[in-house]
Amino acid sequence: MIIDSHGHYTTAPGQLDAFRTAQLARLADPSAPPAVLAAISDDELRASVEANQLRIMRERGGELMLFAPKASAMGHHVPDPDVARAWAEASNDVVARVTALYPESFAGVAQLPQTPPDGAPGPGWLDATIAELRRSVTELGFVGVLVNPDPSGSRWTAPAVTDEAWSPLWEACVELDVPAVVHVSGTCTTAVHPLGAHYLNADTTVFMQLVENDLFTRFPTLRLVIPHGGGAVPYHWGRFRGLAARLGRPDPAELLRNVFFDTCVYHQPGIDLLLRVVPAENVLFASEMLGAVRGADPDSGVDWDDTKVYLERVDMSDEQRDAVMGGNARRVYPRLDARLREQGR
Amino acid sequence: MIIDSHGHYTTAPGQLDAFRTAQLARLADPSAPPAVLAAISDDELRASVEANQLRIMRERGGELMLFAPKASAMGHHVPDPDVARAWAEASNDVVARVTALYPESFAGVAQLPQTPPDGAPGPGWLDATIAELRRSVTELGFVGVLVNPDPSGSRWTAPAVTDEAWSPLWEACVELDVPAVVHVSGTCTTAVHPLGAHYLNADTTVFMQLVENDLFTRFPTLRLVIPHGGGAVPYHWGRFRGLAARLGRPDPAELLRNVFFDTCVYHQPGIDLLLRVVPAENVLFASEMLGAVRGADPDSGVDWDDTKVYLERVDMSDEQRDAVMGGNARRVYPRLDARLREQGR
Repeated sequence: MIIDSHGHYTTAPGQLDAFRTAQLARLADPSAPPAVLAAISDDELRASVEANQLRIMRERGGELMLFAPKASAMGHHVPDPDVARAWAEASNDVVARVTALYPESFAGVAQLPQTPPDGAPGPGWLDATIAELRRSVTELGFVGVLVNPDPSGSRWTAPAVTDEAWSPLWEACVELDVPAVVHVSGTCTTAVHPLGAHYLNADTTVFMQLVENDLFTRFPTLRLVIPHGGGAVPYHWGRFRGLAARLGRPDPAELLRNVFFDTCVYHQPGIDLLLRVVPAENVLFASEMLGAVRGADPDSGVDWDDTKVYLERVDMSDEQRDAVMGGNARRVYPRLDARLREQGR
Repeated sequence: MIIDSHGHYTTAPGQLDAFRTAQLARLADPSAPPAVLAAISDDELRASVEANQLRIMRERGGELMLFAPKASAMGHHVPDPDVARAWAEASNDVVARVTALYPESFAGVAQLPQTPPDGAPGPGWLDATIAELRRSVTELGFVGVLVNPDPSGSRWTAPAVTDEAWSPLWEACVELDVPAVVHVSGTCTTAVHPLGAHYLNADTTVFMQLVENDLFTRFPTLRLVIPHGGGAVPYHWGRFRGLAARLGRPDPAELLRNVFFDTCVYHQPGIDLLLRVVPAENVLFASEMLGAVRGADPDSGVDWDDTKVYLERVDMSDEQRDAVMGGNARRVYPRLDARLREQGR
């Protein structure tokens, strides 16, 4: 079974964007009208994915996509926790409706409200975050969650994810048996491009946080997915091994009991490197379509994000290929696996 | 000729560190004594490199190293422009003494005082920066310069390097005919590890700044070196191509008239990818020893930073290999080339 483990609802009906725009307008001017999400029909939802993610997935031979709200719009750096909560709820609700309309094609991954109450982590800073995680998993049936390691949007004011301040969230992930996809959102400066820099930088930064400090000794069953091929990590695997040795830390390979990388790397040499460096059992097929890149490489004619094509050219055993294309996702996302079994798949 | 294009004086005599410590102590407590750099003898300088960079370079067959102050200690985020200026001058002066003692083995690359007067770029914010650049090149004989695109130390408060605010510095680089090595320093948060995250992130961030906005149309002869194998860029080359297309910008290959990557990538698969993706004429041999990583890979027995070994295993023509190992450095650093010609090399 072929599972695209990284998708975002980047094509949601305009009512959702309008809701966010109204939220931001009211933050800028409290006399503006309250934000209200206008009704979205099932037909509108169907059209929004039938013409896009669902069509492309079918054309490429994919069978199911893990589907989260649009990451660049999460906007945890916008300073109002209540606004963040309402935005996460609305975003997750529309994703849940899509997954209900197409239970065999989509499974939900949650956006969390991570805007800290006082602009910085403090007591109870994760309460709303964890409440929405629980609601997404237990009420909406989501199978995973996006966790933003830098809610400040490129200022990196939060402590490392290995810090005790994050423990309540990791405890909840373990209890609910959902993996956390480490995924930042937009940036508060034009100097750092969200899709071309911040996403990759965050992947790298969090991996180094895990190299530096223990997390999985405290949470041995916690699973983190580092998207976008792990940022710079596989390309610089020797650097991380060397740094770990210099810091007196375990070899980064030890992290691979708990850490997984996806295949959102948009050319053949990058995919080849990923599978050369990282064991196949730690690699999850993903395209992130329709995400950072759109259209096709004019030289090859291959869609930039058609990572399945690149993966088909990698020399792997059948077992490894099955694991990368879907088996690993079922293992990392046990709630997805349970749902698929219910569907007889 | 084999030129290691990326080295730092990480082994300077303790007097230099003591000077910095005294600077920081006085910043914390104005009643502390003024910082004074204690005398360093030529013998101390010789010992500090004979036992380290010079010994290792000779053992590995290198002939000359581009030598800059220790990057992680530049500390532009420490908020005092006068302190930054004195620190850059002291750091460059000791490097200049080493290059004078070993003119056939080292050539200087400058640290600049980049702490903005009011904590943020404003009129004249680069005056002291450019003054030290001029002094380093015209008085100390340096052939290149480190430019920190994020003087805030991981907060990214400065504008993109393509912004007009940076133009006076690029004008000076063009006038002096020195390339700028894009190299950040330490971070102001433990969440972002300098060597394991911030360095690589900055490489990626700046490349994306160059994808997004024109710089080389204004400065067609400016040359930027992006170290550490270009951060995440070659691994995600398809992502950058796809993003450029989506943004209506030229293919990133166009940047390669002005942008060069070094080979500070510490394992074979990474070096293989770099040379598979980036034309050999844009790749500069570099090890950054003694830098981020120390010692040898216990599996292979090869020193992590002995990138010459990895490069020897890459299939290249003799012309390409000569270019990567030294020819490109002579082309990108014309003042180095001129000096080598004077030496009959």
